[in-house]
Amino acid sequence: MAEVTPWEVSGEVDYDKLVAEFGTKKIDEPLSQRMARLAGSQNVMLGRKFFFSHRDMDLVLKDYESGRGFFLYTGRGPSGPMHIGHLIPLLFTKWLQERFKANLYIEITDDEKFVCKREITWGGIQKAAADNILDIAAVGFDPERTFIFKDSEYIRNVYPLMLKVAKKINLTTTKAVFGFNEQTNIGLNFYPAYQIVPTLFEKKRCLIPAAIDQDPYWRIQRDIAESLGYEKTAAIHSKFLPPLTGMAGKMSSSNADTAIWLSDGPKAVRNKVMKYAFSGGQATVDEHRRLGGNPDVDVAYQWLSILFEEDDKKLKALHDDYRAGKLLTGELKQVLVDKINEFLAVHAKKREQAAKHLRKFTHDGKLASAMWEKNFVD
Amino acid sequence: MAEVTPWEVSGEVDYDKLVAEFGTKKIDEPLSQRMARLAGSQNVMLGRKFFFSHRDMDLVLKDYESGRGFFLYTGRGPSGPMHIGHLIPLLFTKWLQERFKANLYIEITDDEKFVCKREITWGGIQKAAADNILDIAAVGFDPERTFIFKDSEYIRNVYPLMLKVAKKINLTTTKAVFGFNEQTNIGLNFYPAYQIVPTLFEKKRCLIPAAIDQDPYWRIQRDIAESLGYEKTAAIHSKFLPPLTGMAGKMSSSNADTAIWLSDGPKAVRNKVMKYAFSGGQATVDEHRRLGGNPDVDVAYQWLSILFEEDDKKLKALHDDYRAGKLLTGELKQVLVDKINEFLAVHAKKREQAAKHLRKFTHDGKLASAMWEKNFVD
Repeated sequence: MAEVTPWEVSGEVDYDKLVAEFGTKKIDEPLSQRMARLAGSQNVMLGRKFFFSHRDMDLVLKDYESGRGFFLYTGRGPSGPMHIGHLIPLLFTKWLQERFKANLYIEITDDEKFVCKREITWGGIQKAAADNILDIAAVGFDPERTFIFKDSEYIRNVYPLMLKVAKKINLTTTKAVFGFNEQTNIGLNFYPAYQIVPTLFEKKRCLIPAAIDQDPYWRIQRDIAESLGYEKTAAIHSKFLPPLTGMAGKMSSSNADTAIWLSDGPKAVRNKVMKYAFSGGQATVDEHRRLGGNPDVDVAYQWLSILFEEDDKKLKALHDDYRAGKLLTGELKQVLVDKINEFLAVHAKKREQAAKHLRKFTHDGKLASAMWEKNFVD
Repeated sequence: MAEVTPWEVSGEVDYDKLVAEFGTKKIDEPLSQRMARLAGSQNVMLGRKFFFSHRDMDLVLKDYESGRGFFLYTGRGPSGPMHIGHLIPLLFTKWLQERFKANLYIEITDDEKFVCKREITWGGIQKAAADNILDIAAVGFDPERTFIFKDSEYIRNVYPLMLKVAKKINLTTTKAVFGFNEQTNIGLNFYPAYQIVPTLFEKKRCLIPAAIDQDPYWRIQRDIAESLGYEKTAAIHSKFLPPLTGMAGKMSSSNADTAIWLSDGPKAVRNKVMKYAFSGGQATVDEHRRLGGNPDVDVAYQWLSILFEEDDKKLKALHDDYRAGKLLTGELKQVLVDKINEFLAVHAKKREQAAKHLRKFTHDGKLASAMWEKNFVD
């Protein structure tokens, strides 16, 4: 049985069931095309339904069309180095910011990682946070419209607002929504207040691009926001990037072999993909030529489809050739390896450049400096 | 039946029973005299057993004698203006600081007041906090050895340490210790972490002078401190200043008539004491002359005994004359009125002077400025 919570994703996820359970809506074709039209182009992850579910995305677009606008919010839990799966919502968010010229807030949840993990030091988290912020900045957000903040650093500005949020949430709620219990520590139990706070940073509608496991937070937000004088947040949900080893669960830091780290060199990438990527191909070359492969369960094909092959025609050719047995597993994997290595080489360069103007995102840019002046509660 | 929690004190408190229930120790004569000897003088509230209970006060004195020293910590919840009852632990703390030359931390718990009170605005609390800090500074602490901090302002420095503390406390504990339940909001449930943090400000033993209703926090602290590499806090507990209206419960802000505010003028004080102070006297002057009064239940006498008549001989004369019927209720009350008015006149002057060097306590003094540089977790 699949389990999907902000702290664990396991098993084969039935996304239709999740949509029903969580009470979100699937992104249908008209909505997807309306987004593309307003954005001026279609995004691959949206067009291919990797971002598949939403809350109030239609209202976000309405606000955009009316000139009122909206703002973006996403985040990262700095428990260690980042892998490709972590980058996905950020890449999509970058597209949204670029196309809709929206302010963006990126929360680095060092506090949450500290209270939820038993064996982790504060110093270790801070080191990971510094490293992660560089990777995030490398994505190429607008430095004047983006504020990257670490929870422990920004706490003084938001603490009164957090308390206002916290006052609306009781133990019954955190137990029901997150499955907390009597053994849950009071830090983890308080943390949802912080994850909700950035949805209240502006008196506009907030749009959160994130994997669907984060949705429980937004459910609470939507229950309490209006009573606090703010708007219910909107959200746009992605599926999970499958781990190298197969379509169940998600790429996870806890199993290093199943993940491609942003710092992996070309050889490591090749080795991992060749060795671990679950294949939809047949046991022998002969059989493969005769029976063809199954791209639906082939991780290399899936990754190409989600992120790495943006050209629809090329992707279709890979799909058809693989299905027909013309393309072998090793060949398909090599296509992916080349794409990943190209992607990571560019990322490494952008990371180097980002280091030079990092403070724009955290302190000195137009949005960042305004945020350090801000108090949210009178 | 009496109820004693950090949020409510009602009924007639049986202090012996509290000591047994809370697992503290009564201050016996040898301990009281040892304190007086080391202090170089006896304190009225200690000598008269208004401070009556403790945890590890003997170890505090041992640390003092060995030259290791200790530090002091107390606090104030800024829900409104302060009355005389609020001043008691502060006056006693001042004596301790003066005599033992100890650092002192005073926590202004604006966060706790906000999350525990339904109908209170953040702005209202901030106004009360500013006003309260002036009253506290007026007590006359050593400005180089005292740090007065508002929770919401100092949060960034302590947040990692709070999380470390919070990680050690689960819902079972806060329910058992504070009576929290499923309806308790997650802000109030998290707050104990903050009230515990200042006990870890130095790697010495902390001594907390406070009314005994605050003891539940210290019980948790003593359970977890050593596992975090700190010392169990010590505490010295006072009884509650009885309200004007009688010996049950404590002077409370929620019933304005039963309290003497620090801002009350001479006429208001006289009116309240004459009108509301519960009397141990007889119904008529004749009966009083004949039967005498009962100082044990007479609030005017009790207040004189707790705080306002420091001269043991004079107090005894009042006691005996009242008991004998020589002193009438109105006369006894007038003695108290004069004492209170003298006290408040001096306080008002000291408050005015304190306004001028307030920042020493909050930012610029030797201890305060060091605390703003401090981080507690690596």
